[in-house]
Amino acid sequence: MASSYSELLDRSLTEVAGLVRTRQVSPVELVDASLERISAVDGQLSAYISVFEHEARQVAKASELMAMVGHDLGPLHGVPLALKDNVSVKGLRTTAGSRILGDWIPDHDATVTTRLRQAGAVFLGKLNMHEFAWGGTSQNPHYGTVRNPWNTERFPAGSSGGSGAAVASRMCFGAIGTDTGGSIRLPAAINGIAGLRPTYGRVSNHGIIPLAWSMDTAGPMARTVEDCALMFGAFAGHDPQDATTARVGTVDYMARLKEPVKGLRIGIVPGYFFHHLQPPVKHAVQAALKTLEGLGAEIVDVEIGHIHGNISAQLTVEAAEPSAYHQRWLRERPQDYGDDVRTLLEVGEMLLATHYVQAQRYRTLLRNEFMEAFRRVDAFICPTLPFTATRIGETKVVIEDGIEEDMLSAIMQYTGVPSLTGLPSLNVPCGFDDDGLPIGMQVIGKPFDEALLFQIGASYQSVTDFHRRAPAI
Amino acid sequence: MASSYSELLDRSLTEVAGLVRTRQVSPVELVDASLERISAVDGQLSAYISVFEHEARQVAKASELMAMVGHDLGPLHGVPLALKDNVSVKGLRTTAGSRILGDWIPDHDATVTTRLRQAGAVFLGKLNMHEFAWGGTSQNPHYGTVRNPWNTERFPAGSSGGSGAAVASRMCFGAIGTDTGGSIRLPAAINGIAGLRPTYGRVSNHGIIPLAWSMDTAGPMARTVEDCALMFGAFAGHDPQDATTARVGTVDYMARLKEPVKGLRIGIVPGYFFHHLQPPVKHAVQAALKTLEGLGAEIVDVEIGHIHGNISAQLTVEAAEPSAYHQRWLRERPQDYGDDVRTLLEVGEMLLATHYVQAQRYRTLLRNEFMEAFRRVDAFICPTLPFTATRIGETKVVIEDGIEEDMLSAIMQYTGVPSLTGLPSLNVPCGFDDDGLPIGMQVIGKPFDEALLFQIGASYQSVTDFHRRAPAI
Repeated sequence: MASSYSELLDRSLTEVAGLVRTRQVSPVELVDASLERISAVDGQLSAYISVFEHEARQVAKASELMAMVGHDLGPLHGVPLALKDNVSVKGLRTTAGSRILGDWIPDHDATVTTRLRQAGAVFLGKLNMHEFAWGGTSQNPHYGTVRNPWNTERFPAGSSGGSGAAVASRMCFGAIGTDTGGSIRLPAAINGIAGLRPTYGRVSNHGIIPLAWSMDTAGPMARTVEDCALMFGAFAGHDPQDATTARVGTVDYMARLKEPVKGLRIGIVPGYFFHHLQPPVKHAVQAALKTLEGLGAEIVDVEIGHIHGNISAQLTVEAAEPSAYHQRWLRERPQDYGDDVRTLLEVGEMLLATHYVQAQRYRTLLRNEFMEAFRRVDAFICPTLPFTATRIGETKVVIEDGIEEDMLSAIMQYTGVPSLTGLPSLNVPCGFDDDGLPIGMQVIGKPFDEALLFQIGASYQSVTDFHRRAPAI
Repeated sequence: MASSYSELLDRSLTEVAGLVRTRQVSPVELVDASLERISAVDGQLSAYISVFEHEARQVAKASELMAMVGHDLGPLHGVPLALKDNVSVKGLRTTAGSRILGDWIPDHDATVTTRLRQAGAVFLGKLNMHEFAWGGTSQNPHYGTVRNPWNTERFPAGSSGGSGAAVASRMCFGAIGTDTGGSIRLPAAINGIAGLRPTYGRVSNHGIIPLAWSMDTAGPMARTVEDCALMFGAFAGHDPQDATTARVGTVDYMARLKEPVKGLRIGIVPGYFFHHLQPPVKHAVQAALKTLEGLGAEIVDVEIGHIHGNISAQLTVEAAEPSAYHQRWLRERPQDYGDDVRTLLEVGEMLLATHYVQAQRYRTLLRNEFMEAFRRVDAFICPTLPFTATRIGETKVVIEDGIEEDMLSAIMQYTGVPSLTGLPSLNVPCGFDDDGLPIGMQVIGKPFDEALLFQIGASYQSVTDFHRRAPAI
């Protein structure tokens, strides 16, 4: 039984969705296998804050009955997923990784939750995260330190660290993460899975605890790009309950996956994308570009004049907006925050209005430069972050020349660009360093062109096998 | 000759446009009459920064020839207008009322300028304004103190004070003003003319020097509501050169003017709209509501729970954004600002990012409350400001009980609501105080529903004659 479970868990989300549809596997088996896996390894990883064992088994049973009578609930029928714990589920605790919301029971689902439900998904539980999705480390002071399944002494990045670790360690077939400054792409890269930050305005934030609302997005994290496309199609699109969602139609993301990359022009910004990063990361991403060239893509050098300001602009916006949102709690319940996040919120309170306004003006400038560049290229590819997983608890990182840098700004070197510009971006696993730690590349696309990112990622995964490796845990 | 000029100048913009179309009057006569009037009275009023005597006569002559051969340039064919001096005109000085831009010659027209040109308008010159459209008084330190034509010891409000004074004193048939926190509506009210702040996103800001871009708008100022509608139709609408303009279609504003107000529901917020204002202003606006009731409109009491925060939110946004825009000049050329504006810009530099972010969050809250209220009412009416023109140079005002208040916040009591929410609003003259100083009411509408504001204003003007009185100057 355990061995058959292990085989089942090693299959991708898309594969098990197909097995349920053809009645070769029951949702009950998938949920049982997942719960058994959680029970076996989550003691080491702390990826889950809440496991809905009872609810998941009930929904799985009902889904099984539905499948038996041929009543297909949708593309995710019977597939066990998990949600980052800032995504509301009606009637079940949603902590956002905080003590402040430790007892909060939402009275409504997030729109993402509702849409996944309606597509047939079964929710296993809620995933660990940085407190309120903010902070420089993954050491959640309230719900335990999430660990990287590839090496439990290493960090899983964040803020969707629980999502990254749970997917990589087969404790769910897919997860929802949220990404403000890199919080989907970074843990996807560092845990060796795929993860999409959608275009700002593509996915509803209704029912999701905000971090910095002018950059907040929610997206899929799963083992393959194909899995992400399958999940994404189930929840992307306009939502009347979120005024920031755009009335731009979605497409059949799965259908687009098979299209070739031949003839696509992929931009790189040489002086920025391949400067100041660990050599194994550089080599892996450059090798991936060669692979795509082999598939017929053309690599084009592009200059983006203002790209160097992106980290400070991002830190400014990402500090100011949460400090406004948290202002009241910060005064009334300062002791209920972890030191890391409370300090960042206090720093945000010191920023001047002109800093914030200039950062917002910079975003327009940077976006205009990218939009101009998209006349010449179809997408950009760069590393997702300039280093591989550091040791748990480290707040500094060495990227080159033995110089220690602050983790928070160093980790955003490449993810800040899509966060500031609102452009979609996808992490695709593209290698491992000498310690066996995963490396990811970031594919950045035009607004609302997520389908092209999936297409590039799936083409790449069709000729590589980094996404097939599993951590030994 | 002078007497016939005076008769001509006393006609409305719409009337003279009709006289040109039927060849009863030549554009050359209109320009000559206007220039003669400028030369006679602007020494007292300082409404103009630049008069384009040569250019205006040339364009008038060409327009006359066009009219003679029956080549109609558009609804404003041959009509002399003037532009606030922050609106660019290609090849002619645009100072924005500042010394810093004192020698600046734009190499392109503002979109508003282009569209008025293409509708046949003749530009007489550029109008005086608060330095960079900011500041609490009308005492421009660089281009002279604008005076109110109804009493030259009184202020004309601002920042479009030159536009208000020039239109009221018959130095042009209509003018363009810009409005961030009230800069069209306040001088319209205090000079006894009509003036529209359009919906945010309705009129292009391309080529206009910004003050606070999240609230900046440009709109028409003229003696009658009908005149404003005629001008507005010539320049409203989407502009690819300004990403903040909406792709919402315009309507035939002139055609809508004749529609009755019978059955319209007009909202008032009793505890805010008729609280804390000078008695003559209160009585004039209440009498105007009675007049509209007599025309068949229904007056409905509405509660807007969060309305009281509007002044501080507005001052926050209006302080922070200019301080970011001016940051470099403020460091390099502080001595080139007047004390008033430099101080305000320095105050803006002290605001915290959280102040600004909270103010922006408040705007969403307030707008949502108004949008909810618009299910029950078609428009709102309140005073445009709570007092009539104070003496030149006063920075304090007494509204009630002998208590002196700071002018800058006191003057925004009613104009802040549309500025923050982006709603369109129209000043309509509705009375005079015992000193013969004009009083205006502000009609506030739904987004992009300027036609209804014109309709209400024109109906009111069809049964009243406040707009027909002229200052004695």
